[in-house]
Amino acid sequence: MDNLVPITLKKLEVWITKKTESSDGWTDIKPFLIIRLITNSGLEGWGEAFVLPKKELGVAHIIISLLTEIKTLSKVTPYDFRNWVNNIAKKHRGMEFSSATSAIEMALWDITGKMLDKSLCSLLGGKSIGQTPVYANSWSSFNIDISTLVKRTQDLVHKGFKSIKLYPLQHRTIDEGAECMKRVREAIDRDVNLMVDLTIPEDETIALAFARLIKPFNPYWLEEPVDGERTSILASIKQQIDVPVVTGEKQCGLPHFEKTINAEAADILNPDIAGVGGMQDFMEISHMAAKNNIKVSPHCWNTMTIAATAMIHVCLTIPNSDHAEIFPDYFEFCSHFSKAGFKIENGKATINNKSGLGVEVKVNALTIHSSFYDKKDL
Amino acid sequence: MDNLVPITLKKLEVWITKKTESSDGWTDIKPFLIIRLITNSGLEGWGEAFVLPKKELGVAHIIISLLTEIKTLSKVTPYDFRNWVNNIAKKHRGMEFSSATSAIEMALWDITGKMLDKSLCSLLGGKSIGQTPVYANSWSSFNIDISTLVKRTQDLVHKGFKSIKLYPLQHRTIDEGAECMKRVREAIDRDVNLMVDLTIPEDETIALAFARLIKPFNPYWLEEPVDGERTSILASIKQQIDVPVVTGEKQCGLPHFEKTINAEAADILNPDIAGVGGMQDFMEISHMAAKNNIKVSPHCWNTMTIAATAMIHVCLTIPNSDHAEIFPDYFEFCSHFSKAGFKIENGKATINNKSGLGVEVKVNALTIHSSFYDKKDL
Repeated sequence: MDNLVPITLKKLEVWITKKTESSDGWTDIKPFLIIRLITNSGLEGWGEAFVLPKKELGVAHIIISLLTEIKTLSKVTPYDFRNWVNNIAKKHRGMEFSSATSAIEMALWDITGKMLDKSLCSLLGGKSIGQTPVYANSWSSFNIDISTLVKRTQDLVHKGFKSIKLYPLQHRTIDEGAECMKRVREAIDRDVNLMVDLTIPEDETIALAFARLIKPFNPYWLEEPVDGERTSILASIKQQIDVPVVTGEKQCGLPHFEKTINAEAADILNPDIAGVGGMQDFMEISHMAAKNNIKVSPHCWNTMTIAATAMIHVCLTIPNSDHAEIFPDYFEFCSHFSKAGFKIENGKATINNKSGLGVEVKVNALTIHSSFYDKKDL
Repeated sequence: MDNLVPITLKKLEVWITKKTESSDGWTDIKPFLIIRLITNSGLEGWGEAFVLPKKELGVAHIIISLLTEIKTLSKVTPYDFRNWVNNIAKKHRGMEFSSATSAIEMALWDITGKMLDKSLCSLLGGKSIGQTPVYANSWSSFNIDISTLVKRTQDLVHKGFKSIKLYPLQHRTIDEGAECMKRVREAIDRDVNLMVDLTIPEDETIALAFARLIKPFNPYWLEEPVDGERTSILASIKQQIDVPVVTGEKQCGLPHFEKTINAEAADILNPDIAGVGGMQDFMEISHMAAKNNIKVSPHCWNTMTIAATAMIHVCLTIPNSDHAEIFPDYFEFCSHFSKAGFKIENGKATINNKSGLGVEVKVNALTIHSSFYDKKDL
């Protein structure tokens, strides 16, 4: 990798977008947390933090606290930043802090790419002409009947997606969930991948029973059959079912992923590029997984423009990326204020090869769609 | 336990105290995050969140976000609150969120005790006339030479402390650390317990080598010989040394502690009552530990008045409490704005048996000592 050029930061801006609903009424769209860093030479870097309800303002203020202190470093590369925050956090990990650092590091990488006139992917040593497969998340915040969900998956296939994530147990019993899986599978081509997300059932026996019931419908993976921190129970479930097990979206920190890998508790890890602490953490986890023949299929419950673009770049730099997560229902809302640095065709994402992330943001529109905005001179 | 009375909240206030220094110059005193909840009948509940640098404002804003939303519950007991936040967090755990919920739950328990005219300890089924042993933490933010540290430990013994925590490897090599331990041990009575905190050395072989070197000086425990999330390495260290191993101050969530207990990776757990998520989480972890003959020695790097009082109450309710943590160097600063609900004599803490926590806070003085204050009508 090139020697990185230290960055002198001049200004931070933070937005939290308003909670809204997709224009077709399919689902709520949660608030997103977006930051812009501006350097003393006027370059801008965009970043995004993975946030959940009631945590958005907290993460925003951790970002503000970190950046108003960062002047102690005077100039900073993404490497310096990671060392500095690791020292500050003193191994007190937490998803809120690591989401905050993820956003800042992402923006620093965007700036670094622009300084060196390289796409992020190329800067990180990746295949900038490559493509990475994606899957469409069909999640809805509402209670959707099976027929409507079947129609939705058909629509997603019609739009070119080759892989779709389902939540068969959301609002359903095990038997109803299996019926849901059966009806979706019957309605679409056998070669469309169906990712199944259980989002941590109350009782781990549910995952075991459900995995057996849906096996005939060829699930691509089974996600979060149990809390990702319950490593030995996860490993036990993995041994008992022959569907690949996915975990990792709710965790951060190398020790957690090291433990999961060593315990052979997963076939695929799905850390979030905007939550796991930063791209460097994400890549280190990915390489650790690769050595153990474990794939990485990044989680992305963020805008489909900023964090999703960072995700696609990083997928093109690691040797073991599987499908990356996409929420097609967020496309329209996000397009009001931003443009992604990748396009999706035939179920695969290709980056645009602009320098840095390659995203474009309309600041006025972003502010209009936001419930929170703050700026700080650094 | 009595049926709890639902609480209608009217007002929230949040303070973050200024970073300062102990009056004798021994150490920095970090900012503390304190909250007051006021009910519609005018009762007040005090709470405190464990916070670290750059996270204070983030935790404050998570508290504000949670409480401005809590009106959806209309009335709330500490039990309702725990269920509600567990649902909000959706198993996305993080120390910042769990510190925020710890503070709120603590204040709700304080109010509940006052409503029922019971001390918190008695309300939780504990021995309100009991005593719990404490240890004095001798930590300094500065580089202290061994002779000065020896004098400090003698002073602490002179003040009545029977147990003292040391950081022999802070600013020292393994050999210098062993010399430090030797000189402290020679200078004080053999029956004074010396707790040794390694605060996660870079390399786990350091803990193994150091444990052997200091064994002749009778350490009471060895704390954080390795990152608390590296469960199997922690278990391996525990097997190789014959000094009790302590871990837990940097973690939250039942799955983590369940895993540590099941892996036999610790002799003593030290969760923080103001960081682990709340008293209910703390007690559940303690009972889980008790079933496996593991002790609980709570961490407390908070004010010595609010969170420390909650800690003493809870120590009197669990069957397996070992020594509770006290920072004597914080007493004077905290006394400017608050009065603890316990007193320490001969190395043991006794609660005052007032209703609730039994703490007193001078609001004007607290505001003067704070760098952040916000209030919200709920």
